[in-house]
Amino acid sequence: MTLQVGVLGYRFMGQAHANALARLPMFFEDAPDVERDVLIGRDEAALADAADQLGFTRTSTDWAEEIDEVDVFYNLGPNHVHAEPSIAALESGTPVFCEKPLAPTLDVAEEMAQAARDADVPAGSAFNYRFVPALRYAKGLIEDGKLGEIHHIRGRYLQDWLVDPDAPWSWRNDAELAGSGALGDLGSHTIDLARFLVGEQAGKIERISGQLQTFVDERPVEGSDETRPVTVDDAYSAQAEFESGAMGTFEASRFANGHKNDHTIEIQGSKGSLRFSLERLNELELLREDSRGYETILVTDETDPYIEHWWPPGHVIGWEHTFVHENYEFLSAVADGGEFHPNFEDGLAAQRVLDAIERSDATGEWVSVG
Amino acid sequence: MTLQVGVLGYRFMGQAHANALARLPMFFEDAPDVERDVLIGRDEAALADAADQLGFTRTSTDWAEEIDEVDVFYNLGPNHVHAEPSIAALESGTPVFCEKPLAPTLDVAEEMAQAARDADVPAGSAFNYRFVPALRYAKGLIEDGKLGEIHHIRGRYLQDWLVDPDAPWSWRNDAELAGSGALGDLGSHTIDLARFLVGEQAGKIERISGQLQTFVDERPVEGSDETRPVTVDDAYSAQAEFESGAMGTFEASRFANGHKNDHTIEIQGSKGSLRFSLERLNELELLREDSRGYETILVTDETDPYIEHWWPPGHVIGWEHTFVHENYEFLSAVADGGEFHPNFEDGLAAQRVLDAIERSDATGEWVSVG
Amino acid sequence: MTLQVGVLGYRFMGQAHANALARLPMFFEDAPDVERDVLIGRDEAALADAADQLGFTRTSTDWAEEIDEVDVFYNLGPNHVHAEPSIAALESGTPVFCEKPLAPTLDVAEEMAQAARDADVPAGSAFNYRFVPALRYAKGLIEDGKLGEIHHIRGRYLQDWLVDPDAPWSWRNDAELAGSGALGDLGSHTIDLARFLVGEQAGKIERISGQLQTFVDERPVEGSDETRPVTVDDAYSAQAEFESGAMGTFEASRFANGHKNDHTIEIQGSKGSLRFSLERLNELELLREDSRGYETILVTDETDPYIEHWWPPGHVIGWEHTFVHENYEFLSAVADGGEFHPNFEDGLAAQRVLDAIERSDATGEWVSVG
Amino acid sequence: MTLQVGVLGYRFMGQAHANALARLPMFFEDAPDVERDVLIGRDEAALADAADQLGFTRTSTDWAEEIDEVDVFYNLGPNHVHAEPSIAALESGTPVFCEKPLAPTLDVAEEMAQAARDADVPAGSAFNYRFVPALRYAKGLIEDGKLGEIHHIRGRYLQDWLVDPDAPWSWRNDAELAGSGALGDLGSHTIDLARFLVGEQAGKIERISGQLQTFVDERPVEGSDETRPVTVDDAYSAQAEFESGAMGTFEASRFANGHKNDHTIEIQGSKGSLRFSLERLNELELLREDSRGYETILVTDETDPYIEHWWPPGHVIGWEHTFVHENYEFLSAVADGGEFHPNFEDGLAAQRVLDAIERSDATGEWVSVG
Repeated sequence: MTLQVGVLGYRFMGQAHANALARLPMFFEDAPDVERDVLIGRDEAALADAADQLGFTRTSTDWAEEIDEVDVFYNLGPNHVHAEPSIAALESGTPVFCEKPLAPTLDVAEEMAQAARDADVPAGSAFNYRFVPALRYAKGLIEDGKLGEIHHIRGRYLQDWLVDPDAPWSWRNDAELAGSGALGDLGSHTIDLARFLVGEQAGKIERISGQLQTFVDERPVEGSDETRPVTVDDAYSAQAEFESGAMGTFEASRFANGHKNDHTIEIQGSKGSLRFSLERLNELELLREDSRGYETILVTDETDPYIEHWWPPGHVIGWEHTFVHENYEFLSAVADGGEFHPNFEDGLAAQRVLDAIERSDATGEWVSVG
Repeated sequence: MTLQVGVLGYRFMGQAHANALARLPMFFEDAPDVERDVLIGRDEAALADAADQLGFTRTSTDWAEEIDEVDVFYNLGPNHVHAEPSIAALESGTPVFCEKPLAPTLDVAEEMAQAARDADVPAGSAFNYRFVPALRYAKGLIEDGKLGEIHHIRGRYLQDWLVDPDAPWSWRNDAELAGSGALGDLGSHTIDLARFLVGEQAGKIERISGQLQTFVDERPVEGSDETRPVTVDDAYSAQAEFESGAMGTFEASRFANGHKNDHTIEIQGSKGSLRFSLERLNELELLREDSRGYETILVTDETDPYIEHWWPPGHVIGWEHTFVHENYEFLSAVADGGEFHPNFEDGLAAQRVLDAIERSDATGEWVSVG
Repeated sequence: MTLQVGVLGYRFMGQAHANALARLPMFFEDAPDVERDVLIGRDEAALADAADQLGFTRTSTDWAEEIDEVDVFYNLGPNHVHAEPSIAALESGTPVFCEKPLAPTLDVAEEMAQAARDADVPAGSAFNYRFVPALRYAKGLIEDGKLGEIHHIRGRYLQDWLVDPDAPWSWRNDAELAGSGALGDLGSHTIDLARFLVGEQAGKIERISGQLQTFVDERPVEGSDETRPVTVDDAYSAQAEFESGAMGTFEASRFANGHKNDHTIEIQGSKGSLRFSLERLNELELLREDSRGYETILVTDETDPYIEHWWPPGHVIGWEHTFVHENYEFLSAVADGGEFHPNFEDGLAAQRVLDAIERSDATGEWVSVG
Repeated sequence: MTLQVGVLGYRFMGQAHANALARLPMFFEDAPDVERDVLIGRDEAALADAADQLGFTRTSTDWAEEIDEVDVFYNLGPNHVHAEPSIAALESGTPVFCEKPLAPTLDVAEEMAQAARDADVPAGSAFNYRFVPALRYAKGLIEDGKLGEIHHIRGRYLQDWLVDPDAPWSWRNDAELAGSGALGDLGSHTIDLARFLVGEQAGKIERISGQLQTFVDERPVEGSDETRPVTVDDAYSAQAEFESGAMGTFEASRFANGHKNDHTIEIQGSKGSLRFSLERLNELELLREDSRGYETILVTDETDPYIEHWWPPGHVIGWEHTFVHENYEFLSAVADGGEFHPNFEDGLAAQRVLDAIERSDATGEWVSVG
């Protein structure tokens, strides 16, 4: 049986997932067969071009018509478009794979999670960094107790594409369309990774204190003399206390000059520590119990997560490979009826933390994570 | 004229400063002549040994008798001993050089600063990292506007000497003797560097939110079966808003497994960025306005701060050299009647931030820095 | 028109090129249309499986029958199989793309190059590292004179898959089948990159002195009790003088414990310098004329070579992407009648250097490169 | 008893050793007592200033008069001044400590070594990098078999102070005064370290092939319109075969733009590997048998060589500390009648390799090391 996939959204994420779907047969032989059936959007001409390039059989401008037609529905649109089609698809019994963050606001995220609970099909949340081999390897080490009791978790996601005040306005700068700025776009990844990596050892984040900052208040609209207000954060920081007493510090920025896609995670425990940077995603730095310093591991051996599907040791993979792994796991869960994580529940859990950071910023107080 | 120096304290800091004094004549020819006159402490036998090793002419167990006898008084004792002798010396018109943090508590720091204001002799606060050539070079770059408007300041000071729960209790674990733990010992350095580096561009820290954590509650007393309670923090984190709107995040720990003396500072501005780590103190990483990435600069050229006194390019200096530079500047100020920074006012300013972090941790709210 | 491609070889290189062909339509819209027509090999069952996985229409066990049937012939077999089919294809007027090194010996390489000269179709030599964006960017900098006069070129290619004396014997350990060991397999890449990067500035290598070493003389045959002799080098080193007087030092090893695929290039000139490592292939370290240290550049901006086809800044690519770029350029040359480099002439030029290194090792003398 | 030390030479090396002598009492309590007795040179005025700065009791312009007066004679003059005073001192029974390389030529080095053999006092060769804690720790690991059988030794010493063709002429550019250029000045350090680190495991260098290059043939004389010829090498490279079959590659340059004092050593063995760079001299990168990558070790723990004399973990030392360790060991050998390495025999052994490299360059052949 071939899974017919419908995809809403054909820009950056559309291409990343289409590429992933296209690569599965050659590298993941046990992945379900997939047809890129329908590409869904609003602009018919652009959609036709994209479908041609991305290898979709047909196009549609009406998601509502398609959610019953396809075996899987990918929602890759902007944040404010996540809820309605995803919920409708789930209500129709169609598995959904939705980009992150789950929703612009916590309320909406809760509705989506409820819809996922009510459905009995997989509802995936596309936190692709869980599928970086180095991070999956890291998780295994933590689960095996190699780091001991966790004391510190530190996550920073630094980009600089807004440091120029004349960088153009986009939906990502708008509270209605995006919910939040660096916090939701980048911070949601960090929070999800913290949960993924140390959630079992350190428990959940109990309380958190946050700070949002907008450095440039309005930006030019491309191709016009107009400017529009920036109604989301350009950067956030947060400090957290986990159930276990572990301390977390988190930060993201679109103003971190010199950093393009620099997502770093650092964890220190009673027996060992580790460090990771997305810009060197094939590497993990690991302090073992009996060693004297961080060991720089190239996580490209056949025994490393997903690597047997790719190339020999030292033949590094790229950012896009995380989408192949993610799609492989999600589609396998769809085909086999298995469980997939991160799911909408995980997306909701991250959203609760994002929401708490916003509440803390608004009130100037530490807040409990709901 | 030779300055007679009296030094209270003969352990780690005693040796660091005695070494600095001993090295001035060979490397800083225009430094004032100095005699290591008297070493002050309580244990006469240990004191005699130390004086012999460190090159002091005589010893004393009574600082009160010595503060009038010497031309300069160095207070290198534990934090709870900073105030009384320093204030007495200043009241006698003797210049004082006091280890950091200025005092265990803000109240005491304010008394000390008041005494310094009332005296007209230098009162130095020994934040030696201001005298790392790479950081002094960094400050010059920032002053010259090379980083533009400052958006982010990030400082972390990571050590791991307490990660073993059986590491012995010391005065540094006691609130009465030390005031605070990682916060005062390590965080005071970070806060001072933040002020030093971006104080003029970003203004002062207006509000701050902090978190203290103690991971191990009691520790064994060396050479006994007893344990004593740990009444200070093992780690702290904080997030700050500067006057200019710049965001600061700060953190220190004595539980950061794998990090020995890892004090890192990162600053991102509208035109450039920089990074520094104390474990590689001869290096500065600099993003310039027209470059595409961080440049790793070995700050060991003849034109770099203090380097003409030392060795040819690439012949790296060590941690202790910061004390030589610091002593050179302080003693020159004493001899020439010049101004020295960091002084007690700077020490007080850092202490206000430390105090605010403690208040925020206690109240669970953002607080203004007094 | 769709180019029908026939591919001889279906293992490591077969998959790398098949993947490249498969990805062109989605990412390089102006690439010629390609059909993976026929996969050629000896073992019919394995071939059928591979053709299925790699997306070929049909299979064949007789390359001689196919070289006229296809529009392009890819020769991805072991080194000793490079010559005959490639020459036959060229004689039939079929463009050929052949894996590196061009041939096991210089004599054979010369025959192949002659066949390419006699044909008027592209004959490509698959030195894929010329298509790493960071290296192509580096070449542009050198051409623009950013490094000035070249003084030093240093190239090392370190792997460790043979450091275990029980690692099994393969064709790569046999002089008949492979020609040489680390020298041809790894060194050919280094020599080609040196030519590519500094060939115009430093001229050709005039004389060279080389050393080959075999650390383990025989190896077990997998699945048997037998051992077979290792008749090629496990490692080589060489030192070279270029026409301009520039000094080159080259080295490769399969015994460099801890190095998986560590191909580093370092170039120092009168105005600037650069460094590259294949294990961090998205990065280039560059010393500019007016800077003080190497700048770590993430070569992932839209303006960087080939990057506009992929992802936003900082979303790193992998090793396999070099094959996509290489195939794009080669197939475009085939379709448009353009010139493609590296071609068999380039392959021959590298082989002359390899041969000179072997002659030098045999005679214990510096030798001229023919 | 206090050792009276006479020192010939008061520039760079004079200061490095004077500083080392001055620091012994405070940090190495069991070091012999030393008086900086007499500073020897030719220019009386400069000498007087230097003696004052460096803490010598008196000065002399006639070394011949002093070699009997002192307990230890330090020869820190240019290379062509190494032989005569050192031999005379040894003939007088005065221990000698001589800067490296031992002599400008192999003949002279042999005379010096013979004089040392005939005397029964220590004759030290000042290869200070043997006293870097990280390298001494490395040697211990190699001796303990942690790297297994040695396959590769790689040493490079890169500087760039001559890359500017207008950098002034000095004695270091003259064959009469210096013997050789980068080869003797920098290469001698590398060769000595290779012997120190792997001499017991890999045996001696049996044969070697070398290349010398001079990029700029004449240089301006400072303060005049004159130029003088450069009669030594600006850079060298060499490849070597050790008795065990291990491969060595060596290189040094004064034209390596962007490298100030970048002396790197890399060793790969059957069980492990290590890397070191002088510009980060507190660090050692170590691949252990059971680990997956190089571990970055800060060699500043109390248990590390010499570190208990200095500061707590992570409080890094500098280049000059190697001289303190070296002087401590040499003077202890003088006082206790013990053996000191590196001695003149070690200096001679290095010189044999340098000489072989020069012979190989001259003849274009591999040569045996005498």
